[in-house]
Amino acid sequence: MKGNVIVGQSGGPTAVINSSLAGVIKASWKAGIRRIYGMHYGIEGLLNEDIVDIEDYVTSSQDLSLLKRTPSAFLGTCRYKLPPVEGNEALYEKIFDILDKKNIEYFLYNGGNDSMDTIKMLSDYALHHNKKQRFMGIPKTIDNDLPMTDHCPGYGSAAKYIATSMKEIIRDNESYGVSKPTICIVEIMGRHAGWLTASAALSKDIDCNGPDMIYLPEVPFDIDKFVDKIIDLAENQKKKSIVVAVSEGLRLEDGRFVCELGTVNDHIDAFGHKQLAGTAAYLANVVTQRTGLKSRYIEFSSLQRCAAHLSSRADSDEAYNVGYLAAKAAFEGNTGKMITIQVQSREPYVESYSMFDIHEVANIERKVPESWIIKDGTYVSDEYLNYARPFIIGRVPPYSAGGLPVHLTMKKKRK
Amino acid sequence: MKGNVIVGQSGGPTAVINSSLAGVIKASWKAGIRRIYGMHYGIEGLLNEDIVDIEDYVTSSQDLSLLKRTPSAFLGTCRYKLPPVEGNEALYEKIFDILDKKNIEYFLYNGGNDSMDTIKMLSDYALHHNKKQRFMGIPKTIDNDLPMTDHCPGYGSAAKYIATSMKEIIRDNESYGVSKPTICIVEIMGRHAGWLTASAALSKDIDCNGPDMIYLPEVPFDIDKFVDKIIDLAENQKKKSIVVAVSEGLRLEDGRFVCELGTVNDHIDAFGHKQLAGTAAYLANVVTQRTGLKSRYIEFSSLQRCAAHLSSRADSDEAYNVGYLAAKAAFEGNTGKMITIQVQSREPYVESYSMFDIHEVANIERKVPESWIIKDGTYVSDEYLNYARPFIIGRVPPYSAGGLPVHLTMKKKRK
Repeated sequence: MKGNVIVGQSGGPTAVINSSLAGVIKASWKAGIRRIYGMHYGIEGLLNEDIVDIEDYVTSSQDLSLLKRTPSAFLGTCRYKLPPVEGNEALYEKIFDILDKKNIEYFLYNGGNDSMDTIKMLSDYALHHNKKQRFMGIPKTIDNDLPMTDHCPGYGSAAKYIATSMKEIIRDNESYGVSKPTICIVEIMGRHAGWLTASAALSKDIDCNGPDMIYLPEVPFDIDKFVDKIIDLAENQKKKSIVVAVSEGLRLEDGRFVCELGTVNDHIDAFGHKQLAGTAAYLANVVTQRTGLKSRYIEFSSLQRCAAHLSSRADSDEAYNVGYLAAKAAFEGNTGKMITIQVQSREPYVESYSMFDIHEVANIERKVPESWIIKDGTYVSDEYLNYARPFIIGRVPPYSAGGLPVHLTMKKKRK
Repeated sequence: MKGNVIVGQSGGPTAVINSSLAGVIKASWKAGIRRIYGMHYGIEGLLNEDIVDIEDYVTSSQDLSLLKRTPSAFLGTCRYKLPPVEGNEALYEKIFDILDKKNIEYFLYNGGNDSMDTIKMLSDYALHHNKKQRFMGIPKTIDNDLPMTDHCPGYGSAAKYIATSMKEIIRDNESYGVSKPTICIVEIMGRHAGWLTASAALSKDIDCNGPDMIYLPEVPFDIDKFVDKIIDLAENQKKKSIVVAVSEGLRLEDGRFVCELGTVNDHIDAFGHKQLAGTAAYLANVVTQRTGLKSRYIEFSSLQRCAAHLSSRADSDEAYNVGYLAAKAAFEGNTGKMITIQVQSREPYVESYSMFDIHEVANIERKVPESWIIKDGTYVSDEYLNYARPFIIGRVPPYSAGGLPVHLTMKKKRK
């Protein structure tokens, strides 16, 4: 008879992270697993022996459907990187003791780069110390920066949120037309990789001009050139509405983050507090002060990773599938691997699933290819659009009550 | 035979402003009006004789359905207040000359306080100078601050966006649980009236705790008391996730805006630019610096007024109705009035429509009643919830293509 399952969620939440959890639960039911445990707040919770019985909350396919529509880590998440084994043997032994105590044989962890490092460390340790446990990674990150997989679950829904909101923002910004141009700078997540910022380009269609410029963190940012381009759009091209998408991670040629520039003088306000400004807020101020033009900024902030009301069906289904397949692979004896998505055909879109050795995945960041960044670093190419368009297709309409989406909560069902 | 119609949109856009336009068009079709003109960018466009023929873009009920799903002023908008008649007679005569030239008899204007002032000035002028034109106001403002009407079209959809996003943000913020508390401060529009900020309370339900505190601009803001409350929640009540909704218009007892406090010293950055911070950004910094707790801020910015993908059905229908009824009232001989909404019963929700003399409406701001603001100015009462709940009911699902909402554009259909 098989041992039990434990599943954890780690790193920044996504709109579809719980679809992967639903996939793990369904595969475990199918395999006749006796108990499905959840780490309450990821590996950090496990270390505190904060472990929940998932069937206290999820017992039916209706629960699974609602779970898929619930944003943000249902089990809670953490940002915790395991230390090297050497010198921390006690910590590793503690983890395995906790697993043994609950007869846990299958360990599934859903996350991005750091989380795959957790799978690597634990699966290596298990192999070297003859532990019975199997460890499988389930990819998840809105940043889309995991290697070996064509793309990451969570990215498609974030891209759909960004592209939908961009269409609406561009409309809003275009509605003032008689007076001077209005510049709107939109800040998008992604400290090192520009995948999320690139998705702003998906808004361009027959009914929307799309953003005027898109700046990814892969390309060093030049403030003077940026201001020159704004002036060109306003004065030479007579544009009344200018909308620019910028990554929060833009850096100057010398390596400094743009978002840090606003605070170099350690400005202290009337109450003795230091002020910080984001990348878009900083650039909007720069534009107004250098050109006299009206500017404003919008930060999508965590909305882009938690807006389950705008989840993509394609993304939610793939998130479910990688969760299901990771559990299935563990039950079949695999360990130290991450499930990946391959795309057989982009049009019509046909995906398939595989798995890769976790050593080829952990701690590697995949960036937007240089050749996809065009127009002197101010836009993305059709290759990007062809790559990303299938990820935002379809909706997962929320269950509603009183005009608002309903979410599954950790209120116990049985006792 | 009746003369022609002209319709204009004014002030900040809303998610359902074009439903009112659809109502005007439908009523004009029904009345057999020959030409339906649109002011391109409101009264400012009219003064430039920038007038469009609406049937260049909208000719069928399918077009009307798509128009209702299109956010932001379809015709373009403006912020323009007519000057007093005295000394500006030429300007007023110019407006009536333009209207006469196109045989326009019915003038419909959709907006908030300033726009109703436009209706007042023009209808008064017409009466005193024996002009044939009739002027009717159509209420619209996400701020919900027009008097005489129970509520304003545009508010319900903004409230639905805010409450939906709050549910998702609270989920997101709760997902980190092991380490120190995280404080998230969410900034909501509304410089003088707290209606929009109050709608954050709608997120509270069986599956969501709602925001911990809600600060409206109606109550003077005390930074020390605010920080004390955060410390109490974190230390005494051991809350791991603290979410606070604040109005962008919060002011101290002495009248200064909180958002201005960050810039009193005229901070100049490394590039010679002055930095600005919003209310929430400022308060998040204050919290971290005084308590050492982790904080972040979210600004809904213009997303709350343009997110048509989350429009409320109740709001969209009412916006359509006030547009239709304003046109009908004008055709029946009314002038110098605004259509209003009355609520016959809040549960079940039954509304009706009336109209009021524009002099009772223009330039008056309606605020949240004092008795609805409770807990020492940090929350809103059940009276508010009972008032607002009906406004967010139902959806207007966008038409979609490629995973994104489709919008109607000003591309000519016929020629």
